[in-house]
Amino acid sequence: MQIAIPLFDRFTALDAVGPYEILGRTPGAEVVFVAERTGPVSNDSGSLQLVAHKTLAEVPSPDLVIVPGGPGQSDQMENATLLGWLRTADAATTWTTSVCTGSLLLAAAGLLEGRRATSHWLALEALQEFGAEPTGERVVFDGKYVTAAGVSSGIDMGLALLGRIAGDDTARSVQLLTEYDPQPPYDCGSPEKAPAALVEEWRARSRHVIR
Amino acid sequence: MQIAIPLFDRFTALDAVGPYEILGRTPGAEVVFVAERTGPVSNDSGSLQLVAHKTLAEVPSPDLVIVPGGPGQSDQMENATLLGWLRTADAATTWTTSVCTGSLLLAAAGLLEGRRATSHWLALEALQEFGAEPTGERVVFDGKYVTAAGVSSGIDMGLALLGRIAGDDTARSVQLLTEYDPQPPYDCGSPEKAPAALVEEWRARSRHVIR
Repeated sequence: MQIAIPLFDRFTALDAVGPYEILGRTPGAEVVFVAERTGPVSNDSGSLQLVAHKTLAEVPSPDLVIVPGGPGQSDQMENATLLGWLRTADAATTWTTSVCTGSLLLAAAGLLEGRRATSHWLALEALQEFGAEPTGERVVFDGKYVTAAGVSSGIDMGLALLGRIAGDDTARSVQLLTEYDPQPPYDCGSPEKAPAALVEEWRARSRHVIR
Repeated sequence: MQIAIPLFDRFTALDAVGPYEILGRTPGAEVVFVAERTGPVSNDSGSLQLVAHKTLAEVPSPDLVIVPGGPGQSDQMENATLLGWLRTADAATTWTTSVCTGSLLLAAAGLLEGRRATSHWLALEALQEFGAEPTGERVVFDGKYVTAAGVSSGIDMGLALLGRIAGDDTARSVQLLTEYDPQPPYDCGSPEKAPAALVEEWRARSRHVIR
């Protein structure tokens, strides 16, 4: 089983590494980070680089694709190379997945038309404009398409998907080994739980960022 | 404020990237990944590489250190360069922190003697052998030393520490922006919650791995 994680300039690191840490432990899986060119790819803040070991063209038919999001996603919405690869890869996959605004890239590639899906909470309107049907769930399964909400949600998606791929016992083992027993010190992780003023502040600040 | 994250061969990616994604958003912070040599550093499975942009020697006095763990930790327990750097850096830090078996490296450097601390649940005995006082908490503060439990716990540590550094409002903003509203599909993330047989299986398997 080959898992491909496409990287692009200004991706968000945890979008990729959260599900990587879970799904990379699938028995028999090989994970490959891919990009238009091989070599280091910089994240949204510029202080972290993950290495892409193969080009998109070198990995045409993965079994599972995990598309991260991040501020750089908006620069990729008309990137014919990346969107073309997503379509080609999707024709081969058993599972096509995304975290955060990675779902906007799947939607731009035409893969989420009429499908239930999710994205970062600030990107749900944009997701709808691209033909998907946003839901309020943290992880959304629609056939082989699995989309997760913002940044940290890829860990939950990874465990839910690992359960489907390798069974509940394997997923439970991985949860125990990664000690995923979350205890956030605040209860402010969704727009429903956060103070309304904070939600509105970020909606205003992001208005021209996510598209 | 300079945040240094030391990398070593076969580190666990989420140990580093979880707290990075949270604490890297501290207003005014600069994050630098460091290692004995600059360039790509491979994680425990070998399929992920993070780039170290500076050598340990080039970053002698960070304000905050975050030490990840991972299977490669056991190869570093007598590495005089890394342990010496941890001692020197610690003399400058406001906060010295670890995730997972990273605390064994802090302990090997002599920094956790008699301190309350934690580690991956499979490494708590080893932590005690190195002079620390393990607790059952997910995130342990003892003065400026902050240690977190296994792999995913660095996200919780990051938020708790961000609250201390930059205030509750900033931490809440970062929780909302990273949409950290965890919803694990299983409830098996600690040895107390997992089936006893699974816990015993992993204790047996790890007996000669963590030291």
